[in-house]
Amino acid sequence: MKRVLSGIQPSGKIHLGNYLGAIRQHLQMQDKFECFYFIADLHALTTIRDAKLMRENTLNLALDYLAFGLDPKKTVFFKQSDIPEHSELAWIFDCITPMGLLERAHAWKDAQAKGKKDLTVGLFNYPALMAADILIYKPQLVPVGQDQKQHVEISRDIALTFNKHFGKTFPLPEPLIKEEVATVRGTDGTNKMSKSYNNTIDIFSDEKTLEKQIMSIVTDSTPVEKPKDPVRCTIFHLYKYFASPAECKTLEKKYRAAGMGYGEAKKILLAKLLEYFGPSRKKRIELQKNLSYVNDILKNGANRAKEVAIKTMDEVRRKIGTRQTGI
Amino acid sequence: MKRVLSGIQPSGKIHLGNYLGAIRQHLQMQDKFECFYFIADLHALTTIRDAKLMRENTLNLALDYLAFGLDPKKTVFFKQSDIPEHSELAWIFDCITPMGLLERAHAWKDAQAKGKKDLTVGLFNYPALMAADILIYKPQLVPVGQDQKQHVEISRDIALTFNKHFGKTFPLPEPLIKEEVATVRGTDGTNKMSKSYNNTIDIFSDEKTLEKQIMSIVTDSTPVEKPKDPVRCTIFHLYKYFASPAECKTLEKKYRAAGMGYGEAKKILLAKLLEYFGPSRKKRIELQKNLSYVNDILKNGANRAKEVAIKTMDEVRRKIGTRQTGI
Repeated sequence: MKRVLSGIQPSGKIHLGNYLGAIRQHLQMQDKFECFYFIADLHALTTIRDAKLMRENTLNLALDYLAFGLDPKKTVFFKQSDIPEHSELAWIFDCITPMGLLERAHAWKDAQAKGKKDLTVGLFNYPALMAADILIYKPQLVPVGQDQKQHVEISRDIALTFNKHFGKTFPLPEPLIKEEVATVRGTDGTNKMSKSYNNTIDIFSDEKTLEKQIMSIVTDSTPVEKPKDPVRCTIFHLYKYFASPAECKTLEKKYRAAGMGYGEAKKILLAKLLEYFGPSRKKRIELQKNLSYVNDILKNGANRAKEVAIKTMDEVRRKIGTRQTGI
Repeated sequence: MKRVLSGIQPSGKIHLGNYLGAIRQHLQMQDKFECFYFIADLHALTTIRDAKLMRENTLNLALDYLAFGLDPKKTVFFKQSDIPEHSELAWIFDCITPMGLLERAHAWKDAQAKGKKDLTVGLFNYPALMAADILIYKPQLVPVGQDQKQHVEISRDIALTFNKHFGKTFPLPEPLIKEEVATVRGTDGTNKMSKSYNNTIDIFSDEKTLEKQIMSIVTDSTPVEKPKDPVRCTIFHLYKYFASPAECKTLEKKYRAAGMGYGEAKKILLAKLLEYFGPSRKKRIELQKNLSYVNDILKNGANRAKEVAIKTMDEVRRKIGTRQTGI
């Protein structure tokens, strides 16, 4: 069974865009691969400098994934910072990585081009830690979006350099390009759904907030008594992701016929989301009452991850000579 | 008792210049301070990419210090790579360190100015690991040469930034500027004693090699029957560091009187070095027969260092929020 490695940044409330863009696929892969998923709290440090927020986001991410059905018996689910060996390997990679390789990273060049004020060494050195995150578990596959392919390429470059200097150690991971999910539109009806546009529908909000977010979806002003175009409507656009083809057909007919207002369409979307995410929403509330269980899952995941990480580091230390042998 | 922290790069055979420049002071400080000395193997990775050499240099450094009288009961003596928390803290520091701070580091600017080919991220990121090396043990004092003062200043800057973001955590260490040792001249009589000039006198070489190195000291060609000038002579220059004032006086007289050749002066120097370093040379040979004892010392040192490092990291993780509390 091939091993898959993926890190997830703890960045707050989960919305439909997150779910469709990454989470759903993470969960589907559990059956086909041996998955190592970690909460990338050390990476999040490049933007979060608030302990409370960091703790909340980390815990929320754990709750979200478990509620959605991450199976801790199958998948090794852990917190990055619980394995300091990631950082040790990142330093070792720093020592063999030419400045130029990281200077050419898209994310770094973007940050520079945008004239970001807070250009930290962490932001620059990010790909070396990521290479360590990945390579320490020697996975075959790393799921990434098309736009993040370079991350895996940098990890491969670093693996090749290490192998060249110290002998074959790291197999080269392949990027597993995620099937393209057409951009999920936000409630403003124009931009991609994203926290930064404040146009999200948050899956685990209480029902009232969820309703409010859905009711805020911007539509055109076709009156109730006129037929409507489902193709251009954001409500229908979101509905399609979760409804069956038959259900979509039914709603489409209602659009094309006269007599349905957008308010009614929004209620249909709300009902669908509550149905689709109902079990997860219920499970999350239960998990929230039992945080020590959640904590135990992360601890147990860390123990399993550590076993693999330590084995790799043992090999690395022997190969670079920071481990004495034979004395 | 104030705590002193110092890292020593494992860089091969120890010569008189190393001893007079740093080692002697390290050993003297053992009685006045609580010393934490570590073998900086992770830093050495920026230049050494050969496991055998890394292992040899590390072991030799341990043997050297123990032979010179490092007392493992007093001093916490360990290998940097045995404490992965150094690297973890370095990453955390990366995330709050502006690129500009490291770009202004003298060592980095020198490397760039020299057009060094191998400009790695490790070379650039060096001061962040060094700040972690230091601050994780919360020492009051860091002994450095005048030329390395900036290293401690960068560590102080990073400590201040961390404290500002996350609350008072790291006390600011003070540089303990080493008393100036006038440059120790090498056997070529012109350059500073240094491996790179191939002009060293290696303290722990076998007697034959030591004699050969001393016999190679370049002098002027004043013949035996003429008086000689001790002030400009490299033999006398080296003798002064190890002989008593009375002994210096005696040799000075021989120089100024006619009848002594440089060969004789070199023999006097050799005898003095063998006397001065005799006990250490003997001890080192004994230690070499008992490498598991040396290894145990480093392991024990790592355990003591780890206790302190873990305590600091516990505090750091709570303050940045990568540690969950209360669940």
